[in-house]
Amino acid sequence: MKVKISIIGAGSAIFSLRLVGDICRSSELRDSLVSLMDIDEKRLWSIYTLAKRYAEELGAKVEFERTTDIERSIDGADFVINTALVGGHEQMEIVRKVGERYGYYRGIDAQEFNFVSDYYTFSNYNQLKFFLNVAKLVEKLSPSAWLLQTANPVFEGTNLIYRLVDVKIVGLCHGFHDVFVIMRTLGLDEKEIDWQIAGFNHAIWLTRFRKDGEDLYPLIDEWIEKKSADWKPKHPFDVQMSPTAIDMYRFYGRFPVGDTVRNGSWKYNRDLKTKMKWFGEPWGGPDSEIGWEWYHNRVSEIATIMQKVAEYLEKDPKMKLLSEETKSFVLESMEKHDGIGNFVNDVFRMFDPEKMSGEQHVPFMESIVGGKKHRLFLNIPNEPRVIDGLPKDVIVEVPVLVDEDGIHPEKIEPPIPKRILKFYLIPRMVRMELSYEAFTTGDRRILEEVLMRDPRTTSHEQVVKVLDAIFSLPFNADMRKHYHS
Amino acid sequence: MKVKISIIGAGSAIFSLRLVGDICRSSELRDSLVSLMDIDEKRLWSIYTLAKRYAEELGAKVEFERTTDIERSIDGADFVINTALVGGHEQMEIVRKVGERYGYYRGIDAQEFNFVSDYYTFSNYNQLKFFLNVAKLVEKLSPSAWLLQTANPVFEGTNLIYRLVDVKIVGLCHGFHDVFVIMRTLGLDEKEIDWQIAGFNHAIWLTRFRKDGEDLYPLIDEWIEKKSADWKPKHPFDVQMSPTAIDMYRFYGRFPVGDTVRNGSWKYNRDLKTKMKWFGEPWGGPDSEIGWEWYHNRVSEIATIMQKVAEYLEKDPKMKLLSEETKSFVLESMEKHDGIGNFVNDVFRMFDPEKMSGEQHVPFMESIVGGKKHRLFLNIPNEPRVIDGLPKDVIVEVPVLVDEDGIHPEKIEPPIPKRILKFYLIPRMVRMELSYEAFTTGDRRILEEVLMRDPRTTSHEQVVKVLDAIFSLPFNADMRKHYHS
Repeated sequence: MKVKISIIGAGSAIFSLRLVGDICRSSELRDSLVSLMDIDEKRLWSIYTLAKRYAEELGAKVEFERTTDIERSIDGADFVINTALVGGHEQMEIVRKVGERYGYYRGIDAQEFNFVSDYYTFSNYNQLKFFLNVAKLVEKLSPSAWLLQTANPVFEGTNLIYRLVDVKIVGLCHGFHDVFVIMRTLGLDEKEIDWQIAGFNHAIWLTRFRKDGEDLYPLIDEWIEKKSADWKPKHPFDVQMSPTAIDMYRFYGRFPVGDTVRNGSWKYNRDLKTKMKWFGEPWGGPDSEIGWEWYHNRVSEIATIMQKVAEYLEKDPKMKLLSEETKSFVLESMEKHDGIGNFVNDVFRMFDPEKMSGEQHVPFMESIVGGKKHRLFLNIPNEPRVIDGLPKDVIVEVPVLVDEDGIHPEKIEPPIPKRILKFYLIPRMVRMELSYEAFTTGDRRILEEVLMRDPRTTSHEQVVKVLDAIFSLPFNADMRKHYHS
Repeated sequence: MKVKISIIGAGSAIFSLRLVGDICRSSELRDSLVSLMDIDEKRLWSIYTLAKRYAEELGAKVEFERTTDIERSIDGADFVINTALVGGHEQMEIVRKVGERYGYYRGIDAQEFNFVSDYYTFSNYNQLKFFLNVAKLVEKLSPSAWLLQTANPVFEGTNLIYRLVDVKIVGLCHGFHDVFVIMRTLGLDEKEIDWQIAGFNHAIWLTRFRKDGEDLYPLIDEWIEKKSADWKPKHPFDVQMSPTAIDMYRFYGRFPVGDTVRNGSWKYNRDLKTKMKWFGEPWGGPDSEIGWEWYHNRVSEIATIMQKVAEYLEKDPKMKLLSEETKSFVLESMEKHDGIGNFVNDVFRMFDPEKMSGEQHVPFMESIVGGKKHRLFLNIPNEPRVIDGLPKDVIVEVPVLVDEDGIHPEKIEPPIPKRILKFYLIPRMVRMELSYEAFTTGDRRILEEVLMRDPRTTSHEQVVKVLDAIFSLPFNADMRKHYHS
């Protein structure tokens, strides 16, 4: 079936190429039109070049267009995937530094139950405004399209669009994949496991974990007792079996999954020393200053590699992307970089023709167009009520079956424990509502209130000063205009 | 109608005598049996003596018994009023001092949206346990009785009993009376005003404020603009028109009523200097160290006066309570005390035969026994749903009509604004749930979690130490046994 897939923010190298790879491997979508849209022409060119070459080599009939015109990309699309980060990580780091200058370790958006370093919910007016603009363009230019909200903050963004724009909206995140880390750690075969996760995006819990009807949590308890003492992180993002996860499980009664482990309380996140203790040395998890710098370096190096590969292929049209020569070229041109060999392998693994990336976008789209049904983990409205005890108009992340009739949520059984609901999800929901209220009313006092409730605040003056400083940043001119006291 | 009214904790002088006064003035209840129960025999004797004399002088046929046996008092009662504070204010002050020693200004129970100095919700195991014991005795000894939960924390206590014991439970508080301060300040006649308050106990908001169908909030705005600058508190509890109340109104969109003003955020309560600014000098509101000492002194002096009066009347059976001689005697015997004249006048005003005290207990009881219907403001389950957006199993404080068929809640119209619901009531509810979870599970980690979420906490060690110290207090032996890690 010929569908048009618009990718907004396609310059995001890793994500776009994973997606394109999956599209090429999908029998339902491999003759689609993929519209790559970004405002960074250089990055867009390299993605476009790589994507085209990759599709050709796989023999897929995918057609590509590249554009900096968002309306053109969305117009007539069947699926719009928004993965753009307005201002990029660079602006986020500037805002974080301002926060730190006024006493807010890791910035004002680092908040209880929301410590992921690029999941800004309060200072990110530009990002939320862009989410809304994209949604309104979809409503206008391709009203029957599905909008796949992929850029963070997925929880806040999906809620915002669901409440304010009449589009078919769904939020997607691959964070649930760490459930397989739990299974691998315990030596279990994922195919034999009956499991559910439920909660909000970046706030999900392993509510069901069974094999042949039998609860597998005792295996986790055993692992904790016998093996957890030997645990060490292999990289900053290796948090799934960390002391934080274990401590959260002990308190809440179910295991937190994926980014949820990064989103505990201040107990684990107060300062670098605390993070080292709870997420392991030498990084202190992905959201410490050390872990986040590691991630930053990696992301920018991958972008550089992509650029180099694209230029290399462009010079010699006979050269193949999926070849040892290309790989060697990259390794040679990058030899100055420490440990780059691992990165290159990672990048090339992305192109493995046999393997789906693990992103849920292509399975979702192929189910909707009438192909294979998929069980996915999506961010959808809590209506019909999937999680008892939460309002209907809040977006939840839950297991669903997707087919051409749409999204069919599973019954969450057993239900989310009361302790998670009352002491984790509801406070996290209040934070989302504060973000929503601030953004929709333009009332600066909401942002002040958020910081007045912040344990790092020692006076009202501190709050006023840090907000003044953030509002004064050149790229926050629109935010400055939008907000009033 | 002859009913039995049991007052648990009757040694609380002010409250018990107000209640007895109201009973004597009620045509439905003036021939009841009032069972005064307390473990403090001296205080009980003075209340009993004064109450008996007072009833005689008013010509009421109320019969009194006094007892230190709680089962005897509850047995066969039609109404059980629990007003007891286990351990008294003395123990609360000891716990507060321990908290302050470890860096918790005004103690660990002073928490966002709950700063009232004798409304302990976490360190008060003995009080909550006693609430439950009283309720279970009512269930056993007088199963058709109404239990009137009057002792603080009313919100936590009423919830606890509602969820765990099969009794007819209602929570009562006179805090809503400050709504009349608003009316008097604006020069309005309360009889002409159509008003509602709604929320939780100590967390209520003036959701309706009309005259002849017209919204009166513009009068508040005008008062703020023209007169609020001249406002000064007359005493520590004079907070209804304070800068805090105005600031909360500006943010939340409706006026907070009564103790709600004391229960704002840390913005108003961070330290003494902050309290001075927001509640006015020289006390900084009732919950500063200065304001609370003022209250303490006043309460203990009133108890002393009651004792003196009782002894005086006992010596001379012909002497009347409601006489100038009695008043003069008290003034003379108290002349060493500064400003005691005002206190004595206050005390004697309590005995005014014409005036109901303003407590809701007697109106509630006389409605239930089939007398006059009353509009009251009670703490009842949110089922049938009175406040949308809150769970069914939570106790709300709302306007109701009471008659012999029971309690009939009014429709809250207009509804509570979303900002109050999401950013004030729901976080306050989470705090109640934390208290409930800690108490019902005995899991000490809940108490730790509460403090880990506290802005005064700087390390986990601080939390462990302050809890260890509170658990080690001699009067917390039961608490120590109940809680486990």
